[in-house]
Amino acid sequence: MAPKTVQAASETASGDPKHAARATRSAGRQMRSRLLDGASRLFRERGLAGTSISDIAAAADAFPSQITYYFRTKEALFVEAACRDMLYVARAAEQAALQVHTPRDYTRALVESVTATDSVAFFAEALTLTRRRQDLAPLVERTIERLHGEGLRAYSNQIERHGWNTLRDPDATSRRFWAVAIGVMVEGYAMGRSAEELCAEMLRVLGEQATTSKSGDLTRLRVVDDRDASVSDSADGESTS
Amino acid sequence: MAPKTVQAASETASGDPKHAARATRSAGRQMRSRLLDGASRLFRERGLAGTSISDIAAAADAFPSQITYYFRTKEALFVEAACRDMLYVARAAEQAALQVHTPRDYTRALVESVTATDSVAFFAEALTLTRRRQDLAPLVERTIERLHGEGLRAYSNQIERHGWNTLRDPDATSRRFWAVAIGVMVEGYAMGRSAEELCAEMLRVLGEQATTSKSGDLTRLRVVDDRDASVSDSADGESTS
Repeated sequence: MAPKTVQAASETASGDPKHAARATRSAGRQMRSRLLDGASRLFRERGLAGTSISDIAAAADAFPSQITYYFRTKEALFVEAACRDMLYVARAAEQAALQVHTPRDYTRALVESVTATDSVAFFAEALTLTRRRQDLAPLVERTIERLHGEGLRAYSNQIERHGWNTLRDPDATSRRFWAVAIGVMVEGYAMGRSAEELCAEMLRVLGEQATTSKSGDLTRLRVVDDRDASVSDSADGESTS
Repeated sequence: MAPKTVQAASETASGDPKHAARATRSAGRQMRSRLLDGASRLFRERGLAGTSISDIAAAADAFPSQITYYFRTKEALFVEAACRDMLYVARAAEQAALQVHTPRDYTRALVESVTATDSVAFFAEALTLTRRRQDLAPLVERTIERLHGEGLRAYSNQIERHGWNTLRDPDATSRRFWAVAIGVMVEGYAMGRSAEELCAEMLRVLGEQATTSKSGDLTRLRVVDDRDASVSDSADGESTS
């Protein structure tokens, strides 16, 4: 069970020293990534208490000492794996929502994507843990900032591209999306809900986020504030609505 | 440290047997309640892992065996204490919101009340625990049902009493309120946010829930569906808006 870092580093050690250093860094990144993959799978299945460092090492074909070398503690690895997976699921949701043509389909594509895995529940578990482990808060804060920043950018791009009217400030819309996702998933997983039930509940709780500009009645609903005017005013010729 | 159950039962044992049985039940309820109070305080301060059954017994002036007698496990006590506190905070929020006259003040009163304590974060921790302990799910389910049922009733009463227009189906409004509360609190406690920051973030994420019927522009925002029509149509003469 010799870990790959060591193999990769020794294979290239005979060549150019810069190349060797680069190869070591790259092997280190690969090992880190493999440990995160193994940890994520086990933590999702068994939770924090049900998973040991040696379980994760075995799953990643590594030594327990490599986990403490890269992540220091099991809790830090838990939080890092959950943060990484949360950003993955956010990106997957944005990708899934790229092909839609109406605000309703957009919200549905996002919600279906987010409720298809337990990444949000895993992240919520990491948030709960971090409350008692404030040494892990900086990573969580950076993740939440990225989540909100990328959510705002993705949503603003969508409403601009399609010429939709957002029902509220896009930043608040994106923050609400993730707060509702966390709330619905934490509640739903406790109750043993299926992915379909989680999806239906999240759609119901979330409600409409935006409307198309041409549907007569709905344009009256526009309640964007001044700050948001630029976003939809700059809608270009590609608008599909 | 003789537990009060025993004292109370023996004091009344000489009288009428029915009275004695009633007194025993009442003493049992008191002990249960005292154990929940002590557990709640310790769990909030130190979390599940940081609190032992003997800590709780000491805090409640009881024996550890009484905890296992009434609650079976520390985890079951954790979930029961969190569920009880969540229903308390929901009732306190409703009480705090009774004196308001505008939809905005109503939402603010609810949110201020809910973000003033860590009851929602405590409940979210219990939900996260329940995901891995499905034997505890029935209590959580009953609590969530009551939370949504009482939330719906309180919100429907308010909009009827004041003649407000709800922006959405009242049931979805109430569910959104709690989903947003859980999402914002789980995130905020991980980031070490203050009660004021939690309140501001929750107000921002939640947005408007209802509008007054007479404010010209805002009535155009009414998006209740047919099922809700009866709620605001029956607004009586007490309406303040």
